[in-house]
Amino acid sequence: MKALVFQGGYLALKSVPTPEPLANEALIRVLIAGICATDLEITRGYKGHTGVLGHEFVGEVMQCRDESWVGRRICGEINVGCGSCVRCLTSLSGHCADRTVVGILNRPGVFAEYVTLPIQNLHLVPDAVTDEEAVFCEPLAAAFEILEQAPVGPGNRAVVLGDGRLGNLCSQVLHGTGGRVLTVGRHASKLRLLQERGIETRQPGQALPYDPDIVVEATGSPTGLQAALDMIQPRGTLVLKSTFAGPSDVDLSPIVVKELTVVGSRCGPFQRALEALANRQVEVRPLISERYPLREGVLAMRRAGSTGILKVLLDVVDS
Amino acid sequence: MKALVFQGGYLALKSVPTPEPLANEALIRVLIAGICATDLEITRGYKGHTGVLGHEFVGEVMQCRDESWVGRRICGEINVGCGSCVRCLTSLSGHCADRTVVGILNRPGVFAEYVTLPIQNLHLVPDAVTDEEAVFCEPLAAAFEILEQAPVGPGNRAVVLGDGRLGNLCSQVLHGTGGRVLTVGRHASKLRLLQERGIETRQPGQALPYDPDIVVEATGSPTGLQAALDMIQPRGTLVLKSTFAGPSDVDLSPIVVKELTVVGSRCGPFQRALEALANRQVEVRPLISERYPLREGVLAMRRAGSTGILKVLLDVVDS
Repeated sequence: MKALVFQGGYLALKSVPTPEPLANEALIRVLIAGICATDLEITRGYKGHTGVLGHEFVGEVMQCRDESWVGRRICGEINVGCGSCVRCLTSLSGHCADRTVVGILNRPGVFAEYVTLPIQNLHLVPDAVTDEEAVFCEPLAAAFEILEQAPVGPGNRAVVLGDGRLGNLCSQVLHGTGGRVLTVGRHASKLRLLQERGIETRQPGQALPYDPDIVVEATGSPTGLQAALDMIQPRGTLVLKSTFAGPSDVDLSPIVVKELTVVGSRCGPFQRALEALANRQVEVRPLISERYPLREGVLAMRRAGSTGILKVLLDVVDS
Repeated sequence: MKALVFQGGYLALKSVPTPEPLANEALIRVLIAGICATDLEITRGYKGHTGVLGHEFVGEVMQCRDESWVGRRICGEINVGCGSCVRCLTSLSGHCADRTVVGILNRPGVFAEYVTLPIQNLHLVPDAVTDEEAVFCEPLAAAFEILEQAPVGPGNRAVVLGDGRLGNLCSQVLHGTGGRVLTVGRHASKLRLLQERGIETRQPGQALPYDPDIVVEATGSPTGLQAALDMIQPRGTLVLKSTFAGPSDVDLSPIVVKELTVVGSRCGPFQRALEALANRQVEVRPLISERYPLREGVLAMRRAGSTGILKVLLDVVDS
C-alpha cells in the first residue's frame, strides 16, 4: 500500500506492506486524514518517531473478528496501552509506560491506505457526521477535555489564547457551555471564523473587557503562557492545551500569588466530540484550508506548516 | 513602643507611636512573633515594603469594641481586604486588589509591642496550645491549605520537596491524612525531625520507593519544581507552596504530557491549624531553633537566614 513515511530525516511517499491485524485488532481503510502540528514537529525530530505519520483520521473497517464492525465508519483513539499494567487497568492506558501511539510512538500512522487498531479504540461515526467532519474528532475531543477539567458554565468568563485549529475548537466548545468566551489571536481571517460563530475576539495587546477566571492556552508559545498567567483572575483555572519543550523562561510566581490551578490537557472524550459534530454544536468545515490526495502528501505537509493555514486534509481513499 | 523597622534599606529597632485601633479593630499586645522567609526577602527588596516587619504572631487583645475579646489570646489572619469589592464579598478578601497585608503590604507588622487588626481577622487560641506553638498558626494553616486543594488520603503516595520550616509542616499535615509521605531534603538534622515523627526521608538524588501521585514543592527553587515535574505520576497533583520571582527556566512540558494539575497555594485555614496544635496532631516545638528578645531583632533576623536554622522566634512581651 501507499504511505507517507518519515525516515532518515526525510518524508516521502513509499510502498509499504499492508498491515496484518492482530486478533484483537481491526484492519481499517483510511478515508480522510488530517495533518496536525504534532506531525510537523515529528519531521523536526520530536519524539524521534520514524515510520508512517498521522493520527487524525476517519476510516472504514475492512476486517475484524467481530463482524458487526465490518463496513462501518469509525474514528480511532490513538493510544494503545499494554492492557495489563496498573495504569491500563485504571482507565489510564493513555499513560501506560509501554504504550504505542498511532503515528507518534512505535506504531504506524494513518497517512496510509490501511491501518490497524485494537477494537476497543474504535468509535462509530454517526450518519449525520460527514467524513470531512469526522476527521476532526481527535482534536475536538481534546478540546472537550477542558470541560472535564475546569468548571466552565454560564457564570464563567473565559479567554482562549490562540486562533489556530486547536484554539478555534476550544473556543467553540467553551462557547457552547453558555459562558462568556473571548479568543485572542493574531490572524484577522482566523478570528473572523470565530466572530461568525458569535465569539468575541481580540488581537494580542488589545484591552480585554474582563479579567478571565478561565484561560485556555492554545498558542504553544511561552509568550502565551506568560500572558495567560498575567491576565487570569486570582483562584482562576488555566488549561494548558499546547506544549513546548525546553526551558520556558516564564515567571511562574502568579501561580502561587494568585493561587491558580493549572491543568495540563491532552487527549479527550471521542464520544462527546462525535455527538457535538452530529448535533452541529461545533462547526469544523470552515477550518479546512486545503485538501490533497495522499500521493501529494509531502506537499500537503509543507502547506500545513505555512502561515495562515488552518487544517489541511489528505484524501486517502481516492489517491 | 519598640518595633523592628525596615526603612531606607536598613533594619533597625526603633521607637514608633503605638497604633490606634479603628472602630472595627482590636489593639493587640504581641507576645511572640516568628521570623518567616518572606520577612528575609522583604529586607532584600521583595514587595518594596517598608515599615514594621513580621506577620507570624500570637498576641493578647488589650482593647476592642467587643469587650469579650479583651484579655484573650489570639492569632490573626494577615490579609485585610477593602470589605466592599466583589472579591471581599465572595470570601476572596485575600485577593482584594486594595488589600493590606500585615508586615508585607501597606500595613505595620508584628515585630512590635503592639499591632492593630480587624476583629474578623482574629482567632482564639485554645488553652491547650502554648504561646510558642500558637505562633506557628499562620504557616501551619498554609500547610493545611493543601488538603483543601489536593485529594490526599490513605490511598495516596505523596512526596514533599524541602525539609525547611514549611516542608516540615506540610509533611506532618500530609502524614496525618494516613497517606504515605516521604520528604526529600538536604539537611540530615532537619530530616531527623521528620523521621522522629515516622515520616520517610531521602536526600536529593536518592532513589524513591514510588512515583508520587501528589508532590508538594516547598524548596522555593526552580530545581525543586523541575524535580517535582519529573518525578510525579501522570494525572498527579503538584502543589506549589513556595514561589520564586523571575524567569523559571523550567521545562514545563510534563504538565501537558502527564496531564498534571498544578495548584498554587498560599494562605490557609487558621481554625484547622489551631485544632491540629491543640490535639497534638502536629508537633511544632522541635522546629524552634533559637529565640531572641525583640531588642535583639536585627541579630535574630540574621540568624534566621543562616544555614541549618529552622524557626527563630522573637519574645516580644519580655523585651
